[in-house]
Amino acid sequence: MPERAIGVFDSGVGGLTVLKEMLRLLPGEELVYLGDTARVPYGTKSPHTVLRYAVEAASFLVDQRVKMLVVACNTASSVSLKALEERFNLPVVGVIEPGARKAVTLTRNGRVGVIGTEGTVASAAYTRAIHALAPDVEVYSAACPLFVPLAEEGWAEHPVAHLAAKEYLAPLVERGIDTLVLGCTHYPLLKNTLRQVLGEGITLVDSAEETSRSVAEMLACRDLPRPNPPGQTRFFVTDIPTRFVRVGGSFLGCPLDSVSQVSID
Amino acid sequence: MPERAIGVFDSGVGGLTVLKEMLRLLPGEELVYLGDTARVPYGTKSPHTVLRYAVEAASFLVDQRVKMLVVACNTASSVSLKALEERFNLPVVGVIEPGARKAVTLTRNGRVGVIGTEGTVASAAYTRAIHALAPDVEVYSAACPLFVPLAEEGWAEHPVAHLAAKEYLAPLVERGIDTLVLGCTHYPLLKNTLRQVLGEGITLVDSAEETSRSVAEMLACRDLPRPNPPGQTRFFVTDIPTRFVRVGGSFLGCPLDSVSQVSID
Repeated sequence: MPERAIGVFDSGVGGLTVLKEMLRLLPGEELVYLGDTARVPYGTKSPHTVLRYAVEAASFLVDQRVKMLVVACNTASSVSLKALEERFNLPVVGVIEPGARKAVTLTRNGRVGVIGTEGTVASAAYTRAIHALAPDVEVYSAACPLFVPLAEEGWAEHPVAHLAAKEYLAPLVERGIDTLVLGCTHYPLLKNTLRQVLGEGITLVDSAEETSRSVAEMLACRDLPRPNPPGQTRFFVTDIPTRFVRVGGSFLGCPLDSVSQVSID
Repeated sequence: MPERAIGVFDSGVGGLTVLKEMLRLLPGEELVYLGDTARVPYGTKSPHTVLRYAVEAASFLVDQRVKMLVVACNTASSVSLKALEERFNLPVVGVIEPGARKAVTLTRNGRVGVIGTEGTVASAAYTRAIHALAPDVEVYSAACPLFVPLAEEGWAEHPVAHLAAKEYLAPLVERGIDTLVLGCTHYPLLKNTLRQVLGEGITLVDSAEETSRSVAEMLACRDLPRPNPPGQTRFFVTDIPTRFVRVGGSFLGCPLDSVSQVSID
């Protein structure tokens, strides 16, 4: 079992920020990444539809005989974790609980902001995860629908991104948050812009980093670390790979190769 | 046959700008609108995948016994018109040829700009359609990926939209275009912003308006106008209707009611 790969999926390129941290922290692991690019994005779709897509994505990875599933998408994590655990009887790590835990550790004034897609914010999954750990922490959320296209356009540090960030974050800053969770796997690309808009007093929580730590902990805890490094990474997408390869490089931090197209619906 | 409805489809809410013009120009017709909201957007997806989705959307409308198909989506029009005509043996109107024809009529200096999604621009469908009518017209295209989320966010006249429009349009303005085709059904919402950024010297071509005129002409030409007005409009979507109803109102110009969810894949 430890020899097996870890399966990671997202609606598209966003989850590559999680994969990047996993490659850094767990260089000995085999990884299989699936981007559901024929149906991206998940963030504007209903919980029912996202759950159906998540089950189909996870089924594909399970067919690759993975030892663990990582749901590297906040929207899918917000609606599918329990269903995937029950259905596939494998350890499942999402991106929400790790970010929530870190935010609770970091906040000094008990006011935490969360930014994400419409779907993630509407699900209130971060609020529930934070309150399960610390019921007194106040959570303020904002959907930032333009951040995904800005990151994919390569405009993460463009004046348009600054202006959009100011608009989206103003209500959270007014609430006096001291910690901001980046509740979408695309948002780590916007870190510099967010830091400039927010100034020094607000700490950013990158859920990609926190998730890779949770994966490492769960591997250790279940005696699953792979014994014979180094590991390889394979990439699959549901639309043709052209755009994934072009846009994904900046998310992964290195060029993407050997990406195969598959059908999962 | 004339009693039958006209079937209209798009990936989501964008095609409602076409439907709005059809309701204005053809108030006696029955209309059936399908938004493929479970798989929206089409604009970043490959021709092969978009063609598959377009065939499934058209099949649903044909099952509703429509007399004509309107592909109210530029990306789908750019790859599927011929395939749909051959497969379903019905008149099919897309949004590209009408806009191209109008642009050729309007341009005085023979320099036409076209803006659209990545998919539409990559297909070069407008360039081909314009050159088929006027081989000497120079066509300059620009993909504007942020315009769709800006329109859906309700930010069509926001400073962020102005700044993005300046950035996207600068290369077209430098080329000296005197006519700009709005090659995406979302873009009519950005008309005021585009006019302000472009100034007086450049005429905008709204393909939603031109398409509804083409539909009227084709109905007349084939003796298909409906004899007993008024007509009703029915709406179908492939994800739950909540977001379609909320966002679509500003595209249609009036509230949306009686929207049903269907499965087409």
